[in-house]
Amino acid sequence: MTHTNRISPLFTDLYELTMAASYFEHGIFDPAVFSTFIRAPHDGSRRNYYVAAGLEGVLDALENLHFDSEEIAYLKGTGLFTDAFLNYLKRFRFTGSVAAMPEGAIFFHDEPILEVTAPMPEAQLAETFILNVLGFQTLIATKAARCMHAAQGRSLIDFSLRRTQGWDAGNLVARCTRIAGFAATSNVYAAMRYGIPPSGTMAHSYIEAFENEQAAFSAYANTFPHQSVFLIDTYDTVEGARNAAVVARSMRQKGNHLIGVRLDSGDMAALSKEVRKILDQEGLHDVKIVASSGFDEFKIDRVLKEGARIDSFGVGTKMGVSADAPYLDIVYKIVRFADRDVRKLSPGKITLAGKKQVFRKSDGAGHYLEDIIGAREESIEGAETLLETVMEGGKILRPHPELSDIQRHFARNFQRLDDAYKSLDKEVRFPVGISARLKALQGN
Amino acid sequence: MTHTNRISPLFTDLYELTMAASYFEHGIFDPAVFSTFIRAPHDGSRRNYYVAAGLEGVLDALENLHFDSEEIAYLKGTGLFTDAFLNYLKRFRFTGSVAAMPEGAIFFHDEPILEVTAPMPEAQLAETFILNVLGFQTLIATKAARCMHAAQGRSLIDFSLRRTQGWDAGNLVARCTRIAGFAATSNVYAAMRYGIPPSGTMAHSYIEAFENEQAAFSAYANTFPHQSVFLIDTYDTVEGARNAAVVARSMRQKGNHLIGVRLDSGDMAALSKEVRKILDQEGLHDVKIVASSGFDEFKIDRVLKEGARIDSFGVGTKMGVSADAPYLDIVYKIVRFADRDVRKLSPGKITLAGKKQVFRKSDGAGHYLEDIIGAREESIEGAETLLETVMEGGKILRPHPELSDIQRHFARNFQRLDDAYKSLDKEVRFPVGISARLKALQGN
Repeated sequence: MTHTNRISPLFTDLYELTMAASYFEHGIFDPAVFSTFIRAPHDGSRRNYYVAAGLEGVLDALENLHFDSEEIAYLKGTGLFTDAFLNYLKRFRFTGSVAAMPEGAIFFHDEPILEVTAPMPEAQLAETFILNVLGFQTLIATKAARCMHAAQGRSLIDFSLRRTQGWDAGNLVARCTRIAGFAATSNVYAAMRYGIPPSGTMAHSYIEAFENEQAAFSAYANTFPHQSVFLIDTYDTVEGARNAAVVARSMRQKGNHLIGVRLDSGDMAALSKEVRKILDQEGLHDVKIVASSGFDEFKIDRVLKEGARIDSFGVGTKMGVSADAPYLDIVYKIVRFADRDVRKLSPGKITLAGKKQVFRKSDGAGHYLEDIIGAREESIEGAETLLETVMEGGKILRPHPELSDIQRHFARNFQRLDDAYKSLDKEVRFPVGISARLKALQGN
Repeated sequence: MTHTNRISPLFTDLYELTMAASYFEHGIFDPAVFSTFIRAPHDGSRRNYYVAAGLEGVLDALENLHFDSEEIAYLKGTGLFTDAFLNYLKRFRFTGSVAAMPEGAIFFHDEPILEVTAPMPEAQLAETFILNVLGFQTLIATKAARCMHAAQGRSLIDFSLRRTQGWDAGNLVARCTRIAGFAATSNVYAAMRYGIPPSGTMAHSYIEAFENEQAAFSAYANTFPHQSVFLIDTYDTVEGARNAAVVARSMRQKGNHLIGVRLDSGDMAALSKEVRKILDQEGLHDVKIVASSGFDEFKIDRVLKEGARIDSFGVGTKMGVSADAPYLDIVYKIVRFADRDVRKLSPGKITLAGKKQVFRKSDGAGHYLEDIIGAREESIEGAETLLETVMEGGKILRPHPELSDIQRHFARNFQRLDDAYKSLDKEVRFPVGISARLKALQGN
């Protein structure tokens, strides 16, 4: 559970090492360019846009990539590798360059989000963790952005930790939801590590540990006179709201303040309206309604369309594993090797050859109009370039942006993307073209 | 990326800590029993059975649970907690007991797989990581078991690392697929850590780095004369098989041996038959056919029904995230507190009160007949008990079983489960009853 910038170089598929061994044996160290992009899915889990995330983790890992003695000993023990190659690994450092979209950028499928240029064995060894780190964080940042759009300005809290796919995933979900604009996380470790406000108050078990609901609320208010949110659905949500109101009024008499009540089951739209009415009748207009239980962008959208009076959503499992689309078809493909462009044209799996850049055109108000995938070195008038050189000679070129800066960067970008593309269920393709110069590189 | 038995106690939802603070303030340290079980899903992603996994991680974490000074300082900084409570946390150790099903056990929804008995604040603090660790590993072990069943004895290799939800997930997937009987993993770190055979040879980029396919195969065979599997679909699978055959024959002349060829795209059933024919015509009967690309239990089942001649499957993304069901509805519910049984009867969310045991009856040949959820202390003649006491007074009672023992335990259990329950798409419910004594505890 300690965190470190080092990712073990054995966090890789064996074939990266066997290929590297064969390149080493044949003296193949020519520079290779690998391009990372997301292929359009075929299974209906389409996303109209993606939110780039994970670059910080990739760069830290690349800069710190080296084999320790335990790892070398393990590889030797497999019997697969020569001593000469193992000696090469002992001295191994990543010396290449990386161009990438900054975290918080919005992009579309087939667009390169990261390109590595490095001697062939180095570029190959970077594949697995680049795909894993960028793929998962982009998956979650994208899912979280969809939730933010559905919530129309209401605040969202990451409640996913208990059901994420491991603890690493739990921490990365907290980070990526923060990039997308979530207000807080229930995950205390991630809150500490990433400087995110932690959030949470009580479970049903707390209520059940007391004589009755009012006793539980009073005890909790006693401990947290200004930071309580009462969970009101343990027995009956409406009755729970009345009990919460009684305790809230008595808190007020003591100069304390109930922040909110939480609904965790039942018909959220209907219950939230009824609970709001009860609270308002008691003059508790400033007591917020928080809702949790199975929320994702689809359920948020539905209950708000039904007129739910919910101020804040706890968004858990379905967001934390991106349940409707739990992986991206992210790939890392060779596009240039030893000064020749490389393309592969397997059916349905086309890779654009050559080192690339993504150009984006906007209208006068800053709204995104179209993207053009071009050659890295060309320039297209009036277009922004999305790929930035972030590493050269194996060294990170600038300090990582703060998480709050990434969040702001995303928020500005997201505003510039037309709402038509933010549809939760309809496929709406943002126009992405290919420049004449890049087309020419593709041959026939 | 270092591994340690310690999981930070901040790997938890904030409410576990705020509830603990309130219990502490009110002197509530009575023993509580929490029961962990999987609720039947409502969304069509039903599993007919589950494979228990993750207990080792839970027990290590519980035995090592303590707050370090950085963590205490962070909690103090939140302003939520009193010094008295923070002092309690400084001395905090888990002192409770745990009864659980061993890893590799087969169970069904609503059956308790782990029960914690501990002073209320301790039992509460254990919730989040128990759910995360048991939930994810059980999810993957179950998915992997489904793949094993579909493969009907062919060997399976975990290829999921590049698309798992983080690296922790990648390692746990390797561990859980091994429990279910996978032959190997591509994940080198997990192979080292868990003693699993590592597997993998080459990617398309390797082929593309050479003049042509035969040159690439020859170069690879040169480096790995006895451990090569050639990837044959970069340009054309059938042509690739012919090129592989040419190189395989020349390897044989030098006393070397090609292990296999790998198909990674196209119509797997048709291609595998054609490739098998080409290899056999060349006398290469011992060269195996490995297939990868989008395999999960459903695709394995389909291509085998189509008569595919595949010896081994690389199973990746869809298994590694359990794509058709990426989470389990696993819960941790209070069932007993301060010497009274606790139940909650929210609509659709029933929890059985009381400390429990799962009894399993088998026929004379050892095949599972039915389960009975009973009270912990009762005994049912001729039935096995699935929950074992594995921790007392916060101490693990026995060494963890070796991964190979867990694998064997699973294999024996899986054989005892009738194939009817192993249907990939049909819901077939194993009979699970409730004992008269446990029913009596539930009141009316």
